Amino acid sequence: MPYHIIEAQQFDKEILFKLFEKADKFRMKINNCLGGKILATIFYEPSTRTRLSFESAMLKLGGLIISTENAKEFSSAIKGESIEDTIRVISPYCDCIVIRHYEEGAAKKASEVSDIPVINAGDGKGQHPTQALLDVYTIYREFGKIDNLKIAMVGDLANGRTVRSLCYLLGKCGKDNEIIFVSPEHLKMKDDILDFLRKKDVGFTEASDLKKILPETDIVYMTRIQKERISKEDYEKAKGKFIINRDNFHLINKNARIMHPLPRVDEIQLTLQIENEDSRVAYFRQAENGLYIRMALLEFVING
Amino acid sequence: MPYHIIEAQQFDKEILFKLFEKADKFRMKINNCLGGKILATIFYEPSTRTRLSFESAMLKLGGLIISTENAKEFSSAIKGESIEDTIRVISPYCDCIVIRHYEEGAAKKASEVSDIPVINAGDGKGQHPTQALLDVYTIYREFGKIDNLKIAMVGDLANGRTVRSLCYLLGKCGKDNEIIFVSPEHLKMKDDILDFLRKKDVGFTEASDLKKILPETDIVYMTRIQKERISKEDYEKAKGKFIINRDNFHLINKNARIMHPLPRVDEIQLTLQIENEDSRVAYFRQAENGLYIRMALLEFVING
Amino acid sequence: MPYHIIEAQQFDKEILFKLFEKADKFRMKINNCLGGKILATIFYEPSTRTRLSFESAMLKLGGLIISTENAKEFSSAIKGESIEDTIRVISPYCDCIVIRHYEEGAAKKASEVSDIPVINAGDGKGQHPTQALLDVYTIYREFGKIDNLKIAMVGDLANGRTVRSLCYLLGKCGKDNEIIFVSPEHLKMKDDILDFLRKKDVGFTEASDLKKILPETDIVYMTRIQKERISKEDYEKAKGKFIINRDNFHLINKNARIMHPLPRVDEIQLTLQIENEDSRVAYFRQAENGLYIRMALLEFVING
Repeated sequence: MPYHIIEAQQFDKEILFKLFEKADKFRMKINNCLGGKILATIFYEPSTRTRLSFESAMLKLGGLIISTENAKEFSSAIKGESIEDTIRVISPYCDCIVIRHYEEGAAKKASEVSDIPVINAGDGKGQHPTQALLDVYTIYREFGKIDNLKIAMVGDLANGRTVRSLCYLLGKCGKDNEIIFVSPEHLKMKDDILDFLRKKDVGFTEASDLKKILPETDIVYMTRIQKERISKEDYEKAKGKFIINRDNFHLINKNARIMHPLPRVDEIQLTLQIENEDSRVAYFRQAENGLYIRMALLEFVING
Repeated sequence: MPYHIIEAQQFDKEILFKLFEKADKFRMKINNCLGGKILATIFYEPSTRTRLSFESAMLKLGGLIISTENAKEFSSAIKGESIEDTIRVISPYCDCIVIRHYEEGAAKKASEVSDIPVINAGDGKGQHPTQALLDVYTIYREFGKIDNLKIAMVGDLANGRTVRSLCYLLGKCGKDNEIIFVSPEHLKMKDDILDFLRKKDVGFTEASDLKKILPETDIVYMTRIQKERISKEDYEKAKGKFIINRDNFHLINKNARIMHPLPRVDEIQLTLQIENEDSRVAYFRQAENGLYIRMALLEFVING
Repeated sequence: MPYHIIEAQQFDKEILFKLFEKADKFRMKINNCLGGKILATIFYEPSTRTRLSFESAMLKLGGLIISTENAKEFSSAIKGESIEDTIRVISPYCDCIVIRHYEEGAAKKASEVSDIPVINAGDGKGQHPTQALLDVYTIYREFGKIDNLKIAMVGDLANGRTVRSLCYLLGKCGKDNEIIFVSPEHLKMKDDILDFLRKKDVGFTEASDLKKILPETDIVYMTRIQKERISKEDYEKAKGKFIINRDNFHLINKNARIMHPLPRVDEIQLTLQIENEDSRVAYFRQAENGLYIRMALLEFVING
């Protein structure tokens, strides 16, 4: 059975730190451990950033790529083929499949018929486990630990996949963390995650005044209000409500970090100089970490 | 003059078995015989499956790829450039061109101005010779021969490129085969093919009762009713008429094979278990064979 | 600071001839000087030809590729991400970015936040410096010099990027050249270029009778009337006005060259035989030169 990557919950602390170690190693020194192996990136939904980072990761390990950027419109899908058939046809062509799909559960379906590893690169409102991995890897890189941190999660917490997955990983693999949820009233973190955190003894609170919590958090995890996933009305109500800009940036603790899964729209408005020079701005390092953790992951699932 | 692959009729028995032999060899052992060579896959019409299998074939032989998945919308074509000009511009960039086009005859036009080999990966209602090749290669793999077989071709025989090409190849390169055409009244095999078969002394009959012919055929070659190529009315009349499912699957001879060019919609409805375990289900092996026969073909046209 | 390629004006004679020399060398003998390096081709606007030639150039030097053919529709751009953020995220994945964008100035913006070289592959009505390079490289290849030539530029001179850039390069790096502008009244070369040529002492005239100037020019540089950049009315007025065909082709000097940036629509109507055999037809050699000059450029900006 191949090791599929379907959801953030599947990782435990042991695998996590094994991956961190590999990612740190690949960051320093490229090697050819996937020489001759082929990765297929099958994207039914746009995500250039994620696709390119997987492809770069594969190439940097000596691997090769076959790719489709718009599987929804251009593949057999429009002729009515099931995702399972597509995977069964494509899997002999390659050694690993990275799939992005607009339907929740698609990656799981794909993995069930695949005899090569399937990596979920986002399935609709579902999971995006490698984003969760790079987030927690970034926390590890910035703080040297994933424990005993105070983390504010800010924005659309109801629909944001990244914050949900991060809660899972912090609850499962970290300890003594504390989470502050900051969101518009109609986009609050959902009960399933709150229940999970309670079960795992992770302390959390809800807050509505960003200013007040900035000085006392280690990580300000900002997210975008996802226009494409909520109603126009809900979007207008939420837009511009929680923003980091020059007025409140100075309130953030000197040793804290601002993270963001990117892309951002207007949630963070800082000058280029601050972004280049202030160590609190961690979101571009975070994006880069995606490359190294995906190298680690590809090596892990393909070479075992 | 480069050796172009334009239509199924161009192959003779000698070339066919030379390709089979190569494909069998590549199946066992990858080599680097196309190292440094570049394949351009230029697709004016969606066909992710075909494109990825050519690209994987090229990579597995050490070759490299440049590719466009939507040449129709994104290329100079929308500025009014002729296919001939496009080919003359692109051919210095690469060592072989695989072209998929929405217009019958496009691949032939392309080949006429190209000094590198052009491979037709489907031109509208025209030909798709590498699909024909993989079909006959699959028959060879499953039966050890392409002679003396009873083959039922089922579905839209009027518009199905694959069944037409298979008739050509069986007529030209096989002997003592017998074909049973099973189709809705309005989607029958056209006269040009029937005339060709008569000329080649290939026996054929037409049938309308799938149940009755299942026990007595060696190959049940199913095809999809191609919604995108016929009228809505014709589609509704044909849809669901000839299906393999649990009700009639047991009627198929134990040593027979079910083939399908894929993608399928509802023509074959079998359980995952049957598909994984019953040797009569040959269509996923058939798809995989496409990889090896395309490796053989690329090596043949590029290295000569 | 990386060496970005943003506009034709940035090249001086020294760099130009250094690149010509490299291009000549790469034409004869491929090497592996970019082995393990990754090029990202990020295209927000269709240009298959340009993209494939960059990708082929990269592969022929041993490099690797990550690519997006439709960044506008499929990337974070539709979520509202700025071009600067996109570049900052993508640049750790690769060693050089080739960008094509629909907005004038986009490549410059991209270069300002990038710590790897950015190459402008066309930005809206702005620049397309590598096209200008391949044009002047072609003149160098065909005439052994870029001086003392009489060059007719024909077609939509108001919107044609290529003729504008060629004027810059001839003015800056050539000497004793003379330009004849031949265009419909409403699509004349703009004053900024005319002023530049005056300042650089490049002689120029405007003409309206193509027949008359054909016998006395060294280069007839034809361009397409760009339907997509002007009004329907302006297009109808200009269409078919200046054409090279069998009626006037014989008027062209035996030692002259016809160039065209391609794609063409109806501006040049010659038989396949003439195009294959008459040395005056230089536009397909011109397109091929793009490959070698882009190899030289990639090697130059990546390896320094």
